[in-house]
Amino acid sequence: MTMSRDQALALDAKDPLAPLRAAFSLPPGRIYLDGNSLGVLPAATSQRLREVVEHEWGTELIESWNSAGWIEQPGRIGDKIARLVGVGPGELVAADSTSVNLYKVLHAACAMQRADRPGRRLIVSERSNFPTDLYIAQSVAREFGLELKLVDAPEALPAALGGESGAEVAVLMLTQVNYRTGVLLDMAALTAAAHGVGALTVWDLAHSAGALPVALKDCDADFAIGCGYKYLNGGPGAPAFVWAHPRHADRFWQPLSGWMGHAAPFEFTSDYRPAPGIGRYLCGTPAILGMAALECGVDTVLAAEPLGGLAALRAKSLALTDLFANLVEERCTGHGLTLVSPREPARRGSQVCLARDEGAYAIVQALIARGVVGDFRAGDAQVPDILRFGFTPLYTRFVEAWDAVEHLRAVLESGEWKRAEFNRRNAVT
Amino acid sequence: MTMSRDQALALDAKDPLAPLRAAFSLPPGRIYLDGNSLGVLPAATSQRLREVVEHEWGTELIESWNSAGWIEQPGRIGDKIARLVGVGPGELVAADSTSVNLYKVLHAACAMQRADRPGRRLIVSERSNFPTDLYIAQSVAREFGLELKLVDAPEALPAALGGESGAEVAVLMLTQVNYRTGVLLDMAALTAAAHGVGALTVWDLAHSAGALPVALKDCDADFAIGCGYKYLNGGPGAPAFVWAHPRHADRFWQPLSGWMGHAAPFEFTSDYRPAPGIGRYLCGTPAILGMAALECGVDTVLAAEPLGGLAALRAKSLALTDLFANLVEERCTGHGLTLVSPREPARRGSQVCLARDEGAYAIVQALIARGVVGDFRAGDAQVPDILRFGFTPLYTRFVEAWDAVEHLRAVLESGEWKRAEFNRRNAVT
Repeated sequence: MTMSRDQALALDAKDPLAPLRAAFSLPPGRIYLDGNSLGVLPAATSQRLREVVEHEWGTELIESWNSAGWIEQPGRIGDKIARLVGVGPGELVAADSTSVNLYKVLHAACAMQRADRPGRRLIVSERSNFPTDLYIAQSVAREFGLELKLVDAPEALPAALGGESGAEVAVLMLTQVNYRTGVLLDMAALTAAAHGVGALTVWDLAHSAGALPVALKDCDADFAIGCGYKYLNGGPGAPAFVWAHPRHADRFWQPLSGWMGHAAPFEFTSDYRPAPGIGRYLCGTPAILGMAALECGVDTVLAAEPLGGLAALRAKSLALTDLFANLVEERCTGHGLTLVSPREPARRGSQVCLARDEGAYAIVQALIARGVVGDFRAGDAQVPDILRFGFTPLYTRFVEAWDAVEHLRAVLESGEWKRAEFNRRNAVT
Repeated sequence: MTMSRDQALALDAKDPLAPLRAAFSLPPGRIYLDGNSLGVLPAATSQRLREVVEHEWGTELIESWNSAGWIEQPGRIGDKIARLVGVGPGELVAADSTSVNLYKVLHAACAMQRADRPGRRLIVSERSNFPTDLYIAQSVAREFGLELKLVDAPEALPAALGGESGAEVAVLMLTQVNYRTGVLLDMAALTAAAHGVGALTVWDLAHSAGALPVALKDCDADFAIGCGYKYLNGGPGAPAFVWAHPRHADRFWQPLSGWMGHAAPFEFTSDYRPAPGIGRYLCGTPAILGMAALECGVDTVLAAEPLGGLAALRAKSLALTDLFANLVEERCTGHGLTLVSPREPARRGSQVCLARDEGAYAIVQALIARGVVGDFRAGDAQVPDILRFGFTPLYTRFVEAWDAVEHLRAVLESGEWKRAEFNRRNAVT
């Protein structure tokens, strides 16, 4: 047997990261394994928002743009996120949504290639990349007269970057951890392969920033974006972030050339003059309430630094996902589940994904009814339906992984998910 | 004499809109005349945000996307704003920033013209339009190979739309109320003139939505955007809004084709299929905290509906700005001030702007030190420095307009602003 419940409890008792859990306001009575969709509320956020709303906005009003540092939020929070993704201060800003930021950097990357290597006609990505990335890429491809080439599996990426087609690739656009399978891509190797054929790289860190060490500079990446409301715990629809390697940041206007990206926004001049560096990747007025919550969220991750930081979080994350996967294999056999996320640590993000030909949605619902919150991602012709369980090492305990598997086993053995499925199929609405 | 202080107090006493002031948490000890920069905190916002943060996010987590209606926020709040700008339900959404939304609609308008009237080479606007509008227009003009033609005064717009150059205009992009001068443009006439030469119109309602009746449909406008944090009181960096006339909304992808604008975002398909109508103008995940605050702000304007709505607010706004301008002309003569905002009600927004060749910044600072909050907008070769006073009829009282002028007079007569100016010029930092 992999581990008893008491052994899981013992792991929690000696977990050096366990104190970090106190920084969260966890939902009572639930095992929350969906931090990769929406991170849990930090304990500090509500009070901080009251301060921003009642004092900074309510009492100080416009003076807070300076006195409360509102105008500096995108850069100040950006500098904090920079520490989590392996880049320097002044290189990254918090702004807008992931989709909007992707548009900025993908547009910039395509414009660079049009200038430097004209005639390249491909943006390469994975068919299973998160849809909004593909939708934005379709739009940018249309604007630049490029083709979006999608490979069916990460194993096909080296071939797409090799041979004759490799010389046609303008941009390689990938998400480091796949939202549906949990597969972690090798950023260093893929970036090197892209550069080897003269392509630029755009990395989406939505499912990796805050969950595992990301080394954008060491991997020599070109552009990156990421999400504020998953492992950064910034709250629903939190501002996202955007980074451009300093060697590229000054080269082009990004197309969303709003006033906050101007070199001197308060001169109110009629001509756009982009700010130096990453500052030009700002657009409109920053979303102050969202920024305040994002900063509280990022601080929960930075609080791990004295305890070993992202390396320690990564070790715990791998231990949690290993434990969960081992227990599922051991205790839920014979129920048609397939492990989709990789067993090899180097290829696995911070989630465990299980496939099932039928009933995946109903099983997730039955688990939620028992207080175990994972989520469901529908399959299609190529991939099966998925039960997805995210493990945020900041606040998830080993005993929760253990208990979650027991609930899964009970749901499968009792067949209670079939009632949920029956209700769903026969619902009057 | 225009009016005594007692007469101003009497106006407040019989003001039918006076009860609306109770819906705000006003800054103590100040006369706030800057709601055109950042609207005052509504009394309901702080409690509502606590509910969203602590209950919807903290306790319900991802379920709130459905159970708390998060996913419907852009459309639900959009329907409320629609009532303020003369368009129907389902035609307008709250989303992103003003700058980002302008990019979406200006891009769409240019794409339509490229298809329908190829060869048109101009985007026409005012040189004194708010800078971010001009910066975004410069970017879109570059992408489409168009030229941004700026007129120096609104009086020059008819000429720009007439003659030979009129046939070259693809898009007329204007802000209904000028942020610096307070000039209110004639939306109906300018839209008709643009349509007369085959141009499309994009209207920025940043300084008009919530301050005066806006009639987008009656004026037959094509596209509009607006700001959530000025007269809509949505808080710093609140989500903005975007409207496309239903005759255009389905025609093109807008370029920021994120997943929230997909016809079925939760099918997670790899191909973008735009939502019907205005839904496709959404992009990334909505900023839930900002949306919640925006809704509280919009509700403060809708609360005027039983009391006469925007027509009543407009009447009070004109009375306030008239009173202020009259008193300045009467009591602050001989101090080098020039009234920049028009006296004619039909040409005036909800602000009074005064120009002065020197010291404008210091005068604004001296007023702030006395608790009268207006703001300063720097001039340039064409326009002088401006002292700007915004009048939000929801919460501004007649006696505040009266007292503000008295403070202005005292600042000018005592010369105390010169000390502020001396300090500014000789500051060590």
